[in-house]
Amino acid sequence: MKVVSTAVEIQALARGYRDTGLTIGLVPTMGWFHQGHLALMKEAGNRADKVIVSLFVNPIQFGPDEDLDNYPHDLERDCKLAEEVGVDLLYAPNKEFMYPDGFSTTVHIAGLTSGLCGGDRPGHFDGVTTVVSKLFNQTLPHVAVFGEKDFQQLAVIRQLVRDLDFPIEIIGHPIVREKSGLAMSSRNSYLKKDEMNAALSLSKAIACAKRAAGEKQDISVQEIRKIVTDVILAHPECGIDYIEVVDKTTLQNCEVVNSDSMLVLAVKINKRIRLLDNSIIQGN
Amino acid sequence: MKVVSTAVEIQALARGYRDTGLTIGLVPTMGWFHQGHLALMKEAGNRADKVIVSLFVNPIQFGPDEDLDNYPHDLERDCKLAEEVGVDLLYAPNKEFMYPDGFSTTVHIAGLTSGLCGGDRPGHFDGVTTVVSKLFNQTLPHVAVFGEKDFQQLAVIRQLVRDLDFPIEIIGHPIVREKSGLAMSSRNSYLKKDEMNAALSLSKAIACAKRAAGEKQDISVQEIRKIVTDVILAHPECGIDYIEVVDKTTLQNCEVVNSDSMLVLAVKINKRIRLLDNSIIQGN
Repeated sequence: MKVVSTAVEIQALARGYRDTGLTIGLVPTMGWFHQGHLALMKEAGNRADKVIVSLFVNPIQFGPDEDLDNYPHDLERDCKLAEEVGVDLLYAPNKEFMYPDGFSTTVHIAGLTSGLCGGDRPGHFDGVTTVVSKLFNQTLPHVAVFGEKDFQQLAVIRQLVRDLDFPIEIIGHPIVREKSGLAMSSRNSYLKKDEMNAALSLSKAIACAKRAAGEKQDISVQEIRKIVTDVILAHPECGIDYIEVVDKTTLQNCEVVNSDSMLVLAVKINKRIRLLDNSIIQGN
Repeated sequence: MKVVSTAVEIQALARGYRDTGLTIGLVPTMGWFHQGHLALMKEAGNRADKVIVSLFVNPIQFGPDEDLDNYPHDLERDCKLAEEVGVDLLYAPNKEFMYPDGFSTTVHIAGLTSGLCGGDRPGHFDGVTTVVSKLFNQTLPHVAVFGEKDFQQLAVIRQLVRDLDFPIEIIGHPIVREKSGLAMSSRNSYLKKDEMNAALSLSKAIACAKRAAGEKQDISVQEIRKIVTDVILAHPECGIDYIEVVDKTTLQNCEVVNSDSMLVLAVKINKRIRLLDNSIIQGN
């Protein structure tokens, strides 16, 4: 596996792949790899000849009071893990190369970005769509794989690709979970031992909601939200950023629960650690 | 020459060129071709194996009181002219394909877009950078050629390509002029006979400014602007949108006139027809 740090290098290598008829799968990441990331990399390997993983903690998608400066990192460890799952190129650019003096472009998606994480993190998705547009042009992928844990992000990226006609297929990969049910996230490494039960309340609440929906076909959005809220707020460490039932495509609030309804949660543990989870409500 | 109207078709044809090792030159246009457009097409032909010309009167770069509905058009005539200069593909998408229901992405460039035409036409450059991003992804060019008459647009496109890492070389082509000196523009077709002298005042004013700068090495910005203003306002049909001396790269107002100084003008004839012209001040 080769590690490169500049856009010029990665673009030349990607062009070389394309010019010899090889297809490219991209997995954009912020590093500190866990089994969720590795599953995305394997998926990219199943769908393309060459796998490029980008590792960039993108400053413009963090708010001023967020965890940019503390975001966990260990390039050596990440390189080893990526190599083990067959990644061909690890692209780890530095901030100055990505956003040189005079950088002045923003890619903005309206609508999909206004609620949920976009409501809690103003400007976050502008940062995401801007950096992903850059990464697409730098790595020239045929397919790009994103995790469904960041469900709104995935919807936003699909909209970006559709609207700007990027010639790239976007693949969503199901959430990878710990045996405990906890959705894997680099931010789980912030959790102290005594915060683990609170963290597990997200997946437990989802399981309760799905069970209730299985038992009562005409369950209402209000009932779902109450079930989830009760499970989560049983833990005093938990603060709710949002608990919503939304259409899986439009991300608009559902009035009734149906097969397109997604339950989406963002919960802060001890005001420090923001965790996401989601699931369709009816079905697996 | 083949004429296509959908992104799927043009992307497949462009991909076909690339897969057989052919390079692509793009000329984005709004149609109603004149010798200026044809010069850009010839330039693209000099620089690439295949030339794609897009023809799309982009609604999102027009303000509510502008000439979108009256913009001159004649596809048959344009096809004939493009074919004569060796264009391979004319891509004329319709509005509904470019901006389907639910379209919600904006590519915005700060800084460069705030003054000059951006000041007079709010949102104009967002429309330009958004459509050009789409056209780049649809036609996959190696090089794209833009006219220097729209000097600010060219600077904005260069910034877009640099910031988002589009793997595309941007070529600026010098203004093509009528024998009279008038910078060629599709909007010249709006000019009535008795408005021609007023329209010619732009290029005449530029010539006067350059002559004065040749005669007085330390000419000031104020002197240049006065010379130009006087020539133009000698015609009662003329209203000045702006007359500025700016750095050719940053588009910031110059404090002194030097070899990087551009004189840029936007003038409205009888409040109907907005004409642009520009030139470096020192040199040819």
